[in-house]
Amino acid sequence: MSSTATPVHVLILAGGAGTRFWPASRAARPKQLLPLVGGEPLITATARRVLPLCAGGGSAGWERIWIATGQHLVAPTRVALPEVPERRLLVEPAPRNTAPCIGWAAATIARDDPEAVVVVLPSDHHIADVPRFLEVLQAAVASAQGGAITTIGIRPTHPETGFGYIEAEEAAGAGSAAPRRVLRFVEKPSRERAAEFVASGRFLWNAGMFIFRAGDMRAAIRAHLPALAEGLDEIDRAAALGAAAEAEAVLQVFPRLPAVSIDHAVMEHVAGLAVVPGDFGWSDLGSWQSAWELAEKDERGNSAPAGSVLVDAQGNHVVDLRARSDARGARTEIDRRVIALVGVEGLVVVETDDALLIVPRDRAQDVKQVVDALKAQGRGRHT
Amino acid sequence: MSSTATPVHVLILAGGAGTRFWPASRAARPKQLLPLVGGEPLITATARRVLPLCAGGGSAGWERIWIATGQHLVAPTRVALPEVPERRLLVEPAPRNTAPCIGWAAATIARDDPEAVVVVLPSDHHIADVPRFLEVLQAAVASAQGGAITTIGIRPTHPETGFGYIEAEEAAGAGSAAPRRVLRFVEKPSRERAAEFVASGRFLWNAGMFIFRAGDMRAAIRAHLPALAEGLDEIDRAAALGAAAEAEAVLQVFPRLPAVSIDHAVMEHVAGLAVVPGDFGWSDLGSWQSAWELAEKDERGNSAPAGSVLVDAQGNHVVDLRARSDARGARTEIDRRVIALVGVEGLVVVETDDALLIVPRDRAQDVKQVVDALKAQGRGRHT
Repeated sequence: MSSTATPVHVLILAGGAGTRFWPASRAARPKQLLPLVGGEPLITATARRVLPLCAGGGSAGWERIWIATGQHLVAPTRVALPEVPERRLLVEPAPRNTAPCIGWAAATIARDDPEAVVVVLPSDHHIADVPRFLEVLQAAVASAQGGAITTIGIRPTHPETGFGYIEAEEAAGAGSAAPRRVLRFVEKPSRERAAEFVASGRFLWNAGMFIFRAGDMRAAIRAHLPALAEGLDEIDRAAALGAAAEAEAVLQVFPRLPAVSIDHAVMEHVAGLAVVPGDFGWSDLGSWQSAWELAEKDERGNSAPAGSVLVDAQGNHVVDLRARSDARGARTEIDRRVIALVGVEGLVVVETDDALLIVPRDRAQDVKQVVDALKAQGRGRHT
Repeated sequence: MSSTATPVHVLILAGGAGTRFWPASRAARPKQLLPLVGGEPLITATARRVLPLCAGGGSAGWERIWIATGQHLVAPTRVALPEVPERRLLVEPAPRNTAPCIGWAAATIARDDPEAVVVVLPSDHHIADVPRFLEVLQAAVASAQGGAITTIGIRPTHPETGFGYIEAEEAAGAGSAAPRRVLRFVEKPSRERAAEFVASGRFLWNAGMFIFRAGDMRAAIRAHLPALAEGLDEIDRAAALGAAAEAEAVLQVFPRLPAVSIDHAVMEHVAGLAVVPGDFGWSDLGSWQSAWELAEKDERGNSAPAGSVLVDAQGNHVVDLRARSDARGARTEIDRRVIALVGVEGLVVVETDDALLIVPRDRAQDVKQVVDALKAQGRGRHT
């Protein structure tokens, strides 16, 4: 990546709840706020990783990072990202899926500069090869600067049925990272279709990353989702009257906006959409299984807190998220607590202050059933 | 059992440490102080169960219950058995195995009444059929009153290699609970020998229960373990001078007494030893596996605290021994904490305030390896 590239704005989508990382993830502590890989929350890693792109060689990177989140997540999000200026938090008065908040960010940025490029990223993914990721984003930024709304497509490594796919026009050079024309978006496929997709070489995973000029996105919304465009116009008019009027308009308008995803409501209808194929060790961290895959492990495949006692145990993923202090004050980590696993294999074990989960790694997706059971029992405070 | 039977003294042996119930059992909280089956500590159940025998129809039962324990266990033992008068606690100045404390109790009781019958019981076993147990003990008391040091032999249900065996003379009626002459004690056998023992019908499990007149035990000790007899004489002489002198003598004498078991040092050498066969749902609660066997379980074989969420889980044993209060005060049990097991089978899960253990039931005996590892790491406070 050139250090003199035009700086871009990054919008990090950080709402959401999600039950797949229960009991670590909660309504008030969703996945992006958890240190599921490495020591920092996923959203912190997400922002740090793209900072060079926002700064463009300058020092004002944090000024160009925008966070779309909900009111209940403002405080913990600011703890995770203290460098982001408060005015860059787009606090959604009500959860309305991705189209309204992306539109809101595009409108806000376009007021200053409709040519400004915006990179929209999920807050809770993991990327292993950051330099390669930044190269791919730069290619996408260049594509967006040429006027094409652009997405990133992950080269599939297996016939995954949990993701949507993007079919791209075949490129001259198969390995090229040059933008290709998007032929269509495809919903999560059956296993058979997924296998065909992977075999074809034309299909990429939809990772929810979109790159565009702010004005282009406003135009696309006007063309394909006029109800949203009208709401954004209303916010624009209020913004001309000052910050207080703008804030009031957001409160009034936002809950009435159509709750639809940018993919379905806009992207699928845009002509000339481009996709840049990417291959940078991407993971959507879909379950405790993927957290284990990405974790540092001992020679027997165990990932466990320092001081754990593992006797004839292998392939286990142990996570201790309980509060670190106790009545007697700070202790050394090794002395604080013992987690002992004897003769067990392939388990996920997660402890929080008010819950303990034990599930085989290959059944990690069934954690949802625990959340459902707790809700059915009226024990919502544990979800 | 006749309610007008002669009351007896019961000596409950409550020293010991043991690692088989780690992390529930600790040096300062050995097995007998844990509510491993039902709601009360094993030692509490042990005392309550024999109270009718001590009272003999009267109300002074607790006066005849003696507890032999160590100094570090006095406080929690008194919490578990507040009804036992403080002067009935025989506090061993140093752990010297079973012969010295049984001899000490026998000497102390014999000073008042050498004809008094003493029943020695382990503090940490479980007995399912209490009425039958009391009948067997009554038969043993009658045998002891006739002058025979008597033991209880458990009819073996399987070729257990973890227990010692007692070979008894064949009885006229095989099912009879009448006392039989003991032929010999046998140490823990190989599996082959254990199978022969069970097949023979002549062998019984040694459950560490002994019944004798106080004077008879003193005489047996004098005959077979004179070093202990001399120490007890010294305590006797001091006791004649008053309680303070007696206490001082115990402190001086006890640490010098031979640290041997009553079985090896005395019982194996006594002529005319009797055994009463018993069949009253006895368990020595040797591991978490046996705790699970005796626990109340749901229809899928899980034993877990109320409020646990079990999804497709079976045969698990979940024990939560963490402190019951938190900073926000008391909560209802169901709201306090969630333990969720999804898709796991046959696990033992034990939580205490400073430890979590997960081990398959059929490897519960390997818990010792955790304790060994912690000691080797200098983390003795967790053992």
